[in-house]
Formats: sequence, C-alpha cells, structure tokens
Amino acid sequence: MTSADHGAGLLAPGWAGSPAAAETSDAAFLRALLDAESALTRAQAALGLAPAEAAAAVTEAAGPDGFDIASLAGRARAAGNPVIPLVAELTRAAGGEYGPYVHRGATSQDIMDTAMMLVARRALGPVLADLERCGRALAALAAEHRDTPMPGRTLTQHAVPTTFGLKAAGWRSLVLDARDRVTAVRASLPAQLGGAAGTLAAFSAYGAADATALPGAYARELGLVEPPLPWHTLRTPVADLAGCLAFAAGALGKFAVDVLTLSRTEIAEVAEGSGGGSSAMPHKANPVRSTLIAAAARRAPQLAATLYGSLVAEDERPAGAWHAEWEPLRDLLRLVGGAARDAAELTEGLRVRPEAMREHLGLTHGLIVSERLSAELAPVLGRARAKELLTRVARRAPEEGRPLAELLAGETESEELGVDLADATDPARYTGSAGALTDSALERR
Amino acid sequence: MTSADHGAGLLAPGWAGSPAAAETSDAAFLRALLDAESALTRAQAALGLAPAEAAAAVTEAAGPDGFDIASLAGRARAAGNPVIPLVAELTRAAGGEYGPYVHRGATSQDIMDTAMMLVARRALGPVLADLERCGRALAALAAEHRDTPMPGRTLTQHAVPTTFGLKAAGWRSLVLDARDRVTAVRASLPAQLGGAAGTLAAFSAYGAADATALPGAYARELGLVEPPLPWHTLRTPVADLAGCLAFAAGALGKFAVDVLTLSRTEIAEVAEGSGGGSSAMPHKANPVRSTLIAAAARRAPQLAATLYGSLVAEDERPAGAWHAEWEPLRDLLRLVGGAARDAAELTEGLRVRPEAMREHLGLTHGLIVSERLSAELAPVLGRARAKELLTRVARRAPEEGRPLAELLAGETESEELGVDLADATDPARYTGSAGALTDSALERR
Amino acid sequence: MTSADHGAGLLAPGWAGSPAAAETSDAAFLRALLDAESALTRAQAALGLAPAEAAAAVTEAAGPDGFDIASLAGRARAAGNPVIPLVAELTRAAGGEYGPYVHRGATSQDIMDTAMMLVARRALGPVLADLERCGRALAALAAEHRDTPMPGRTLTQHAVPTTFGLKAAGWRSLVLDARDRVTAVRASLPAQLGGAAGTLAAFSAYGAADATALPGAYARELGLVEPPLPWHTLRTPVADLAGCLAFAAGALGKFAVDVLTLSRTEIAEVAEGSGGGSSAMPHKANPVRSTLIAAAARRAPQLAATLYGSLVAEDERPAGAWHAEWEPLRDLLRLVGGAARDAAELTEGLRVRPEAMREHLGLTHGLIVSERLSAELAPVLGRARAKELLTRVARRAPEEGRPLAELLAGETESEELGVDLADATDPARYTGSAGALTDSALERR
Amino acid sequence: MTSADHGAGLLAPGWAGSPAAAETSDAAFLRALLDAESALTRAQAALGLAPAEAAAAVTEAAGPDGFDIASLAGRARAAGNPVIPLVAELTRAAGGEYGPYVHRGATSQDIMDTAMMLVARRALGPVLADLERCGRALAALAAEHRDTPMPGRTLTQHAVPTTFGLKAAGWRSLVLDARDRVTAVRASLPAQLGGAAGTLAAFSAYGAADATALPGAYARELGLVEPPLPWHTLRTPVADLAGCLAFAAGALGKFAVDVLTLSRTEIAEVAEGSGGGSSAMPHKANPVRSTLIAAAARRAPQLAATLYGSLVAEDERPAGAWHAEWEPLRDLLRLVGGAARDAAELTEGLRVRPEAMREHLGLTHGLIVSERLSAELAPVLGRARAKELLTRVARRAPEEGRPLAELLAGETESEELGVDLADATDPARYTGSAGALTDSALERR
Repeated sequence: MTSADHGAGLLAPGWAGSPAAAETSDAAFLRALLDAESALTRAQAALGLAPAEAAAAVTEAAGPDGFDIASLAGRARAAGNPVIPLVAELTRAAGGEYGPYVHRGATSQDIMDTAMMLVARRALGPVLADLERCGRALAALAAEHRDTPMPGRTLTQHAVPTTFGLKAAGWRSLVLDARDRVTAVRASLPAQLGGAAGTLAAFSAYGAADATALPGAYARELGLVEPPLPWHTLRTPVADLAGCLAFAAGALGKFAVDVLTLSRTEIAEVAEGSGGGSSAMPHKANPVRSTLIAAAARRAPQLAATLYGSLVAEDERPAGAWHAEWEPLRDLLRLVGGAARDAAELTEGLRVRPEAMREHLGLTHGLIVSERLSAELAPVLGRARAKELLTRVARRAPEEGRPLAELLAGETESEELGVDLADATDPARYTGSAGALTDSALERR
Repeated sequence: MTSADHGAGLLAPGWAGSPAAAETSDAAFLRALLDAESALTRAQAALGLAPAEAAAAVTEAAGPDGFDIASLAGRARAAGNPVIPLVAELTRAAGGEYGPYVHRGATSQDIMDTAMMLVARRALGPVLADLERCGRALAALAAEHRDTPMPGRTLTQHAVPTTFGLKAAGWRSLVLDARDRVTAVRASLPAQLGGAAGTLAAFSAYGAADATALPGAYARELGLVEPPLPWHTLRTPVADLAGCLAFAAGALGKFAVDVLTLSRTEIAEVAEGSGGGSSAMPHKANPVRSTLIAAAARRAPQLAATLYGSLVAEDERPAGAWHAEWEPLRDLLRLVGGAARDAAELTEGLRVRPEAMREHLGLTHGLIVSERLSAELAPVLGRARAKELLTRVARRAPEEGRPLAELLAGETESEELGVDLADATDPARYTGSAGALTDSALERR
Repeated sequence: MTSADHGAGLLAPGWAGSPAAAETSDAAFLRALLDAESALTRAQAALGLAPAEAAAAVTEAAGPDGFDIASLAGRARAAGNPVIPLVAELTRAAGGEYGPYVHRGATSQDIMDTAMMLVARRALGPVLADLERCGRALAALAAEHRDTPMPGRTLTQHAVPTTFGLKAAGWRSLVLDARDRVTAVRASLPAQLGGAAGTLAAFSAYGAADATALPGAYARELGLVEPPLPWHTLRTPVADLAGCLAFAAGALGKFAVDVLTLSRTEIAEVAEGSGGGSSAMPHKANPVRSTLIAAAARRAPQLAATLYGSLVAEDERPAGAWHAEWEPLRDLLRLVGGAARDAAELTEGLRVRPEAMREHLGLTHGLIVSERLSAELAPVLGRARAKELLTRVARRAPEEGRPLAELLAGETESEELGVDLADATDPARYTGSAGALTDSALERR
Repeated sequence: MTSADHGAGLLAPGWAGSPAAAETSDAAFLRALLDAESALTRAQAALGLAPAEAAAAVTEAAGPDGFDIASLAGRARAAGNPVIPLVAELTRAAGGEYGPYVHRGATSQDIMDTAMMLVARRALGPVLADLERCGRALAALAAEHRDTPMPGRTLTQHAVPTTFGLKAAGWRSLVLDARDRVTAVRASLPAQLGGAAGTLAAFSAYGAADATALPGAYARELGLVEPPLPWHTLRTPVADLAGCLAFAAGALGKFAVDVLTLSRTEIAEVAEGSGGGSSAMPHKANPVRSTLIAAAARRAPQLAATLYGSLVAEDERPAGAWHAEWEPLRDLLRLVGGAARDAAELTEGLRVRPEAMREHLGLTHGLIVSERLSAELAPVLGRARAKELLTRVARRAPEEGRPLAELLAGETESEELGVDLADATDPARYTGSAGALTDSALERR
C-alpha cells in the first residue's frame, strides 16, 4: 500500500473526479504552498529586500517537480505542519546562495493560510461556473413551466396547487443566493503574512524599512486580497468560507430533496436525466445525482460548525483550533464542488412530467381547492352555511370517490351559488400569483 | 409546578436577565405573533381588501393582554404550531363582525416566520449596541497599550514579543467584523407572506386584484423587508442569521479565551474588572464573564449547523426542518445577546497589568528575541557561525539562568558583532510593526 | 414580562406539556439542587460529621417553597452558576445554628452535577416508559402485518417487495436498542462529590477521618451511583447521556421519516391516528406527531456534539466547557422525552392500509419482481437469453402499461419456461424471509 | 496530477502514517470490499448454494492485484457507489463459469456496509493497543506522583492543592473508559446481508431453502457478528461507532488540553518528551503531540453528529443518509487512531517537573489553603471572627507579598489558635484524599 491509497475518492462518488477535487488534492495543496513561498521571495525582491536573482531562483526551485508528498506528509508530524519540511527541501533546491531567502521572515502559518486561500480561490472557480450553469438551466425550466400546475405539498400532504415554474424559480433563487455569497467571499480571500507572532518584526530585522508594505506586495503576487491585519487568530476568512459553503450545500440540498421526493415511484413528476441503474433490477432508475447532493448537504453543516468553532483560537497561534481547520475546509470545498457539478448536470437533464402533476391534482377529488371554495362561498352563503356545506362534501368526496364539483352541484345550495363550479374547482385555475412571482424572480440575474 | 418553570434561565447565567433574553422570551414571541397578525389585517385594509374598522378591531384585539402562553403552548401540540390556537383566540377577541378578517388568506408559517424575523430584528438591536460598546472599549485599550510589550505566544509557548495594543486591536477587528455581519443581516430580514403553498392564491380568492402587492404592504407595516419570493422553503434569511450569529459568538469567544489564558494565576497579565467570588476560597476572583462567553461560543456552531441543515426543506412546507429551526434560532439569539452583554462589561472593566507582561518577556532569558538575533548576526558572522553561536547560548541561558545578552557578551565572537547587545536583546525593542498595525486597525470605524 | 415568559414551550410543541418537560423545568432543577444539598448534609450526619438535627433542619429548609427561581437565575450571573445564591438562601433558611452545615465542604459543581444526574434520572423514567409503549405497539403491528406485502423502496424507487411486518419489526428493533442504551446509562448515573478541586480535602478539614466514605453515602441518599473518582472534568456520565439520547432521537427519527413518507398523499399506505388539521383546508390531515419527532431528530445530534465537545475540560474545573453542558443536556432530555411521547401515541394510533400497499406493488407492472425472474429464468434459458428477454419486456411494460406476466406469456420463450408465471410475477410471493425475520425479531424482549 | 494526490495526509499530521491511516486507506477499503465479496461466495458454497470451485475462483480473483482504485472511484459516480463497478470487474476476473456467482443475491449495500465494519474492526485494533499503552504509561505516572502536590485549578485560577498523581489517574480513567467503550463496540460489529430490500429474497430465488442461515455463515467467514436483522436502515452499528469514537477523541482531548495548559511557558509543570521545533526560534519546544490530539478532539463531535443524523434513514435504503456516512466514519477512525498513537507517545515521554508544581503552590502566598483555614479556624474562633481574620490576611498577603502563615502569626488571634500554622498553611499537607483516590483508581484494570 502506498501513500496514494487514501485519496482517489473511493468513498466519495460525490466529488471523485470533479474539478473541485483536482483543485483540493494534496498535490494542489503542495502547489499552493510552493506558490506561496515563491511569491514571498518575489515580494521581498519587489521591495528591495532580496535580490531579483533570489526571487528567480526560488521561483524556479518551487517548480512542479521534485517534491514527494508522502514523504513531506510523514515529516509534517514532527512539528505539526508540512511547511517546515517543505522549507527545508525548498531551501536546498534553491541552492547555497539563494536558499537563505526562502521563507525568510515568515512563519509556517503565513504559508499554510495563504495556500489555503489560494486553494479555496482556485476551487471556487469551477464551483461558481457550475452554480451559473445550474441557475441558467433552472431559469429555462421555470420559464417553460411557468403555467404548469402541480400539487403544492405541505407536511407531506397536498395543500393547494402551485406551479412547477414557481418551484423551479425558487430553486434558482437559492442557487443565485449561493452564487452571490460564494462570489463575495471568494473576492475577499486575503493573503496571510505576519511572521512568528503577527508583528512582521522579522522582516524589519532582515532590513525592511516599513514591513507593513510587504503583505500588500505579497498579496498582489498571488492575486489575493491584502489583509487589514495578520489574521493568524482572527479567522474571519475561514469562517466566511464556512458560512458560504454550508449555505451552498444547503441550497443545493433543497433542490435535491425536492427532486428525490418528486421522483418517487408513486409520484414520478420528475426524473433525473440518467438515473443510476441496478444490476439485479433492470427497471430501477435511481436518482443518483440528487442522492449525492443530499449526502453532501447532510455533512456540510457539521463541517462548517467545526470551522466556526475554530474562531476560538487562543494566543497568537492556537494549539489545535488552527490544525482542526485544514481537512474540514478542504472537505467543504470538494463536497460543494461535487454537489455543484451534480446539480448542474441534474438541472440540465431533468425530465418533467406535467401530465403526472396534472393527474395528481385530482387525487383529492378537488379538495385541493377547498381553500378557494371557502373564500368564495362565504360571501354568498354566509360563513356558517358555507363551512357546513364544504365540510359535508369534503367528507363525501373521498368516501364516494366523486369530484367535488359534482357533489356540490347536487347540493340544494348550488342554485344560490352563482359561481361556475367547473372553474372554481379546477386546480389549474387556482395557482394564484405563481406566474407573476415566477416572472419577477426570473428578472434577477 | 407551573408552565412558568422552564424559562427563567436558571441554567443560563450567560443570558438570564439580558435584553436579548427579554426580546426572545415566550412572551416576546407571542407579542411578535400578534404583531404579525394585526399587521396582516392592516395591510389588507391598506390595499382595500378589508375595512379599516377590521384593521382597527384586530389591532386592538391583538393588544398585550388576554392570551395565556401556557395554554397556547399546550394546544400548539395538536397541529404542531402555536399559530392555529392563537388565531382561534384572536378571531374570538376581534368579535363576530371583524373576526373573519383575522389571518385571512394566510398560512401559519406566514405568521411564525414573520414573528421570528421580528424577534430577531428586535433582539439584535441590543446585541449591536453591546458590540459597539465592546468595540469602543477595545479601541481605547488598543490605543492606550499601543506600545505595551508582551510575549507573543504560539502553541502555548513564548514565540516573539508583541504588544497588548495589537492584541486588543485584533479583538476589536473581530468584534467589528461581527457587527458588520449582524448589521447587514438584520437589515435584510424579510416578512413572510405566501399563503398555503406560497402562491398568494387565497388573497386573490378573497378579492385581491394583484395579490403580489400584499407582501410589500405587509412588510412595511412591520418594518421588515419585502421578500422577493415567499420563502417557506427558501430559508436564506434563517441561514444568514445562523451564519452571522455563529460568527459573532466565535469572535467574542476568541476574546474570551485570550482573557481566560491571560488571567491564569501564573500569568495574570489581565484580570476581569469584577471576578466572580467563591465562598470557601476568598482569594479567588474567577473570570466569570469570559467563562460564560466561552461557553456560548462552544454551543453556537452546533446550533448554527442545525439551522444550515434546515435549508434542506422539502416541498412547500417541510415536515420537521422548519419546526427544528425555532428553538435553535432563539437559543442563538440569546446566547449571542448574553455574550455581547458580557463582552461589553468585560472590555469596559478589564484590568491590564503591563508590569506582568514585561516581567514575562524575561522568562526565557532573552530567547524570545532569538529570531531577531538570527536575522542580525547572520550577515555579520555568516549563517553557519551565527547559528552555532546562538544554539550554544540558547542552551546555556535556561540552564544557567543567565540572560542572553550577558552570555553573548562573554563569547569570543562578541567583539565582531558590532551591535548593541542590550538593545538587540531587549524584547520591548522587538515588537516590529505592532504599533503601525494597531494604528491602521484603529482607523476602521 | 415575568420570569415565566421563557419557558412554557411556545416554540416547542414537541415537548411542551410532556412528562420530560416537567422533569426538566427550572423548577425541577431547583428541586434537584435542593435535594442534592439536603442529601449532602444527611450523608455527613450519617457518617457522624454533622448532627442529626442539622440534617433534619437542612432537609426541612430545602422543602418545596420559598425560593424564587427568577431571582436565583439573576443572581447566578455574578459567579456563573445558581448554586452560590441558592446556598446563601438555604443557609439562611436553615437558621443560625444549622446553617453552617449547608453545603459544607462541597463545591458548586458537586451540587450542579448531582442535580443534573438527578434530573436526568427522573426525566428518563417516563422516556423509558414511552419507549416500552412504543415497542409494544410496534410488536403488535409487526405481528399483525407479518405477511402484509408492500413495496420495498431504495433510493426512492420501488426495488423488490417487503412486508409491513418486517418494517415494523425493524422500527421496534431500533426502539429497543434505544431502550437498552438509555436503561444502561440511566442505571450508571453517579452522584458528584469532590470539593473544590476533587480531592475531598475540605471534608477532612471538617473532621472526616476517611473522606472517601462520603461520596458513597451521598450517592445512597440520592439513589445515584457512587462515582469511582470525582468527575468534575472526567465527563463520562454526560457523554454517555449524550450518546444514548442522540441514539434514541435518531431511532425514533427513522420511524418518523418512514411514517412521513408512507403518509404522502400519493402513497397513503399509513396514516397517523389523528392528524393535525388545517383551518383553511378541511381535507388535510397532517402527520404532526411524526413531523415533531423528525424535528427533534434533526436537533439531537448537534446537541450531543456540544456535549461530546465538553469532554475537553481543562484543569480541575473548566472555564466554559462545563457551563456549555447545562442547557444542551436539558434540551436533549426534553426533546427525546417529547419524541418518545409522540412516538408512543403515534404507534398506538397508526392506521395501516394494506390495500394501498398491495395496489402499489402493481405500479411497476410487475417489474418489482424482476430480480426474481432474473434468478429463475437464467437456469432455464441461459443467462444471456434470460437477460435479453427481461430487458425487452421491462421496456415494454411501462410503455404499454401491461403487466409483466402477460407480456412474458406472449413471448416465444414462454413455452420453454416451465414456470407458473402468475406465481412468479406475484409480488406477494416474493417477500423472501421477511416473515421469518419478523418472527425472530419479535422474540427479543 | 494523479488520483494519488488526495490522500497522503499532507493536511493531516495527526494521522498521516499511522496504523489507523493504513487500515482506512482507499486500498484498505478496496481490500475489505473484495473480502466481503469473496466471503459471500464462500458462505453460499458452505451452505451448498454454490460450488466449492466458485468459492475458490472468486476468492482467488479477489486477490490483491489487478484493481485500479482511481478507475473504480471514477466509475462509482454513475450509480453512486463503488460496488457496482467492482462487481463488474470481479465477475470478469472470476471467469465465465464462476463469474455468475459473484455478488449473487446481494445488494451493493450488503458489501459496502460489511466492508465498513471490516475496516472499523481492523482499524480499531491498533487504536486499542495504543489506548492500552497510554493507560499503562498513565498508571506509572499516577503511581510515581501519587504524592506530588500541585495547584488545583478551577476557572483558570488556583483553587486548592491536588496531586499530579490524582490528575494522571483521572486521565487514565478516561482512557480506560474509552478503551472499554471501543472494545465493546468493536466486538459487536455485524456483517450486513439482506439483499435488495433486506428480505433475503434473492437467495431463495437462487435456491436457498432457508436464506436466514446465510447471514450467519457470511459473518463467520469474516469474523464479524451475525446481525439480528438486515440493518440497511437500522444503523445502530454506525451510531455505536460514532459514540465510542467521539468519546475516545474527547477523552484524549481532555488529557491533551491539560498537557497544553501545564506546558505553557509560565507554568511549565510538564513538557512533551520531544517538542516540535521552530526554525527561527531555537528555544521553542512546541507541545505538538497534544496540539494534534486537541485538533482531533475538536473535529470528532461534529463527525459523530453527522453519523447520528444518518440514523434517520428513510425506506429500505435512504437517498443520502447512507452515502453521508462513509467519509465521516473513516475520518473518525483515523482521527482517533492518530490521536491514540500521539497520546501513547506523549504519555510515555511526558516530563514532569514537581519542583515547578511546588513553586506554584506558593504563588498565592498560602491562600491556596484558605479553604482549610476557614474550616479549622471557625471552631476555634467562631465563624464570624474566623471569617473576619481570614478576609483581612487574604487581602494583605498579595498586597504585601508575604506568606499567610507569617501574617497569621502576627495577628492577635494567633495565640488562641492552637494550631501549627506552618503545617496548616502548607499546601502539600492539604491534598485531602488525593492519594487514596489515586490508589483506588489504579486498582482498575
């Protein structure tokens, strides 16, 4: 067994092989650590604190080859993080003259945190693209089914009609909420630079006239944001990532759980474009994409909780809270990355069956519009008689298996009603403002 | 035992008696439910859907008296929420003529969600005030101690010096981050109005020409935001509250855990203004305020996780996810409310002991500045000799209990150094950019 | 607003009014605190460390009246727990002569922890009774429906048939697992007695020849277990409670989510005995009991996580971890208590509709037994031909809306089959060992 | 980048390279999946349901080579789990004649769940060995330091004296509690076998006279326990693992956080055997082992919460709850495995400094025994005078920096006291029953 054995994603069909998985692999983290180290030397060179040749040498030494991840991981145990063995190797690789410029003035956490932010920034790129795809596909579904009536369900029971368009518009609004939150957080991710205790003191010891210029130069090298303060124990960026990722997982989870419900054999109002098969049961088409999204949504909140908990980070570097962030943050990035990929595929391939929706509107024999009848009959008959009438027919409808309109027409009060019973009991004519709400929701970009 | 027995906060010294506790009590929720109901009738009257007299009658009936919380709570069991029994009572109280206008067209969730937002809005007022107090007190501490050196500690060990000013500025930056997140979320809290399945259909059945005008009118009555869509199962507002409250708890928790550490008998660099006493041990002054904040910070992430989990809300009203939000959201509001109160008191009363900080800077016999010596001696002696020299004296300093400056002065290399050893080994002169970072952090308002 | 306003359970229809709610109220905690105090004095008297009159006086003073919960809760803020103000009051109430024997030698945590264990022990009594009720009702359902076939569903899709009996037997096995875990933990709950730092030193200072005899005497007074060590920071009892309560909530949650699924309007294979109504929609019968159980099951894991997290309790009494236990432990007790009550009512009233189950077995036109046909046709036709045949008819069945048996009978291979197609495609005859498994599961007591 | 890149543990110094990591790698899971498949065929052969040659052929085909983890992981996406592509490959590898016996009658979940239990059983072996090592080392420490006095600390402040022996005995009691819980759960882990919907029906279709004999035969092949029922959605085994692992992490976390506290530069009563170094700060010896344990303890409760949440598994196989278990269960196993390894090394190498403990007992000028003086002086002087005297000297001691004994000796009441003040104020003579408690705790095996 080799070091490779942990991470192909054998237990993770939700993210295995996704772009987010590639951007959060151990190799991607190593890449980000090396990017952070070489950017640090370049930033010092840019401010005249190191020779340009040192920057070039370190950048070249930090190239893609020559580092053994498993060996680094093993040696990380001694000091508790992989930066220390990596710096030793990189220093050697940079050579006798320029090696001393590697990591100069920095602390391990400067590099780890910066690499985390780089990885997050890179992994969130494809996440956002998939959320956009998802939003577009849902917009199309909402527009297409603006007037497709279906049962509205509350506490598992048919309540009153709604439309599939409004439902899709709601899913989309959550996806766009997720997109907006992720976009804002991604744009705010800062570099980390503070030195051993966050005072930038070593940079001055190495000759900086104004060490406070360094974090900005460093951030610019990396395309990250300049931090207002070193944030070794001010973990706002990590908490913000936790929040937007837990939100994104939940937003997609709402969509997934609706697809799962509507895909049930008895309901079958929607179906995944290509369900997962079963060897022994050829008829099965499992809603696999939504299942995997739902699984991600079950895990994300607790991973975010661990990250929120790590806000409580004592001293200038905590003994545990920081180390507890690394894997959960990666897990969140790739779970959400995988879920966004699945959601994009799912929305683009979703098959909608308006005829099943229409059929189900009749399951309660017209009682699904009883709310409307309550409202409309009361002014005509008075509240008491209207209620008495409706209660009576509502009992008979399921017992006798006859539609509400027919039963009402047979009642003596029917002559007084003066309403078109066929219209008043047609579920498709009781979708309220669903169309208008869908329209206005689709105006959002 | 009466219904009153659950909630005085006997198990909650962190929030008992706080403004947030008052704003989140069962009575406050009842108040908010009644406010939501009466606003609904007024909004309908404003749009001509109900007579002005009905609005007045319902508003009066929804006045402060005459509702028995325990009785409502008991009757809430049957249908799973307190709105149903409350509507029955309020309808009765509004009288035969105007009673029918109570709750007209709405669903229980419209009222519950709106009340939740009202309660959140009200409870977050004092929270923000306390965060502001806290931020001001920390700004004063940071300014006063801009140049007070103290040991920077990483993984529990002295690393290099920092300043108490920078530490306080860091605490403040987290408090302001919390304030900004809470402020933004508070300003976005929407009213809820959608009717049974979120289509606003019943309002049309009751005569509204354009039912989509109603949510805005309703929101205006209550000082809440008009929602883009009914959000019965689009729980962005609840998730946003979860995120900002978990953040606030953690931000205050970081401050608390630092105070706890610095208050330890052996460290005693800070002390709470009025520590909690012990009957049997008159010398004890327990850091009770920070203890209670720390306790809140341990609970908030998991409460937020439950709320993020409730994003996964199936159908048009979920069977469980919604009900699982009510108590955790209240818990978060009052835990953060209590913690903000405690933090305000704590920051305003914090006693700082610069002399203890100064004394501790000497605990490692000057080794706390070894990083500086590494940086400054290498150019003079060459890296190899510098390292050899420092390793030698670093071993001797704790063994012999003699200061680094003295040991270095006795070494043969000392003649070559050409540095002022007293200066170079003075921890107070190795605080780097702590002052400048504090200054720039304090510019934030 | 009074102290009563927090806790009638207005936001908690799941536990409001339940026996567990009564046993976990603030008043119940006060009762337990007073019981702990008076038992301490009696235990000291039993060992000759206090006069019998003191024991009597303190026990009488600790009677039911005369303590104001809200006032105690407010004063608990100063020192961070309610024991300190309570001891002051109880000392006063015990009078000048015997007052000094109140709380003698103990620390606040001795009393708080002991009271927690008393409350847990008392609250778990009705919980166990309800789990037993639930188990009995499920045993009856399993026996009655031992041979009632229904669709087995996996990933939301019909898979192969199962029986309602096996399903009920499975629910019961989880309920009994919960009962067994709760019973074992309840029987292990210890008293707490250690004094200020867990050394029992003060009891010796007050004259005990062997202070280690005291915890046992104390535990006996209270019907709790003698602890092997003071457990102020060895929180096994609290973690064990967390584990068994999270388990119980999840076990009931599995049952609830199945009832919710099977209650869906389109499925309707079961119905709650008395569903919750809706004012505007007379046809609705919401599965309220299972909704509230499901809501509890969503919250319990995170509450347990907070308690597991509090195992990490530094020193001889931690600054936060202990305080963070109180409310979550109470929440768990009453959530599980409410859920057990709801589950008992739900199981006893559950209405089962075998005819709906039978009807749904036909929804896939016989494909629900395709697994059986695969197994039985392969030996006859060879694997390749069998598979080809089944794939063909599996496609046709839903397209043509014709049953599998009929389609197979029309195929040329039918003559070779030599199997009774009506039998082989009857879902009721493909329930495997469901009956035998149900029987053996019901042997468990 | 290759599939190998995710899992060397670059972000996980806590478990990288540990035995538990090896037993939970993707390769180890593949091994377990193959073990489960071959055991299934052997079990069928043992019951006469398959030829012995098939069992041999499948067992050989399931040998260590020839399966590409990354490829399997990628193909797992389609159906949502890796068993389906694995079965296809294994069937091919077993050859035309015996291939059909691969996986016969089983469902993917039978194999996944069984493999999970195998992996858990294997990973918990070294965990238990490390817990035993840890317990032995702590027993030695407790015995050696049975009478080593040190400050007892509550809410961060010195309270009364305790002993390091009692502290170590407490740590050990938690470690043994963890060992006992893990041992019990490990011995209970069941095989999983139920077929598509848990009825064992396919085994009968393939010819089993009594399919209920199969799960037992299967379990025996694997050294697992025969399950009372198929547990596809009765997740007691997973929840039990969650509970014992969260407990173990917390138990070790308590030990770690105490070591972290006692290792602080200002306290330094203990030190890790070999602290982690810092390149720039040669004096630093970071408590890395306890830091990594503490980090694991911060994550475990939330991972367990996800697993407890998955108890709520609808139908005969849930769409998400099951999939959400896989990675968190693995994470828990390797986090606890890594923490146990670190704890074993830490306890065996821990350096204890009794002289520092002794010195700190004097930090409060004797006030650390004020509880004793309160108890002993009251009978002599009367409560009021005793309290007045102690309050007075307690104020003077820190102000004047003079020991309590000296101040008391100077008071006029001193003549009345008749107690040996040097003895009564010696912290080492106020450790109560610490020794006896340590002795009795060490009797536990």
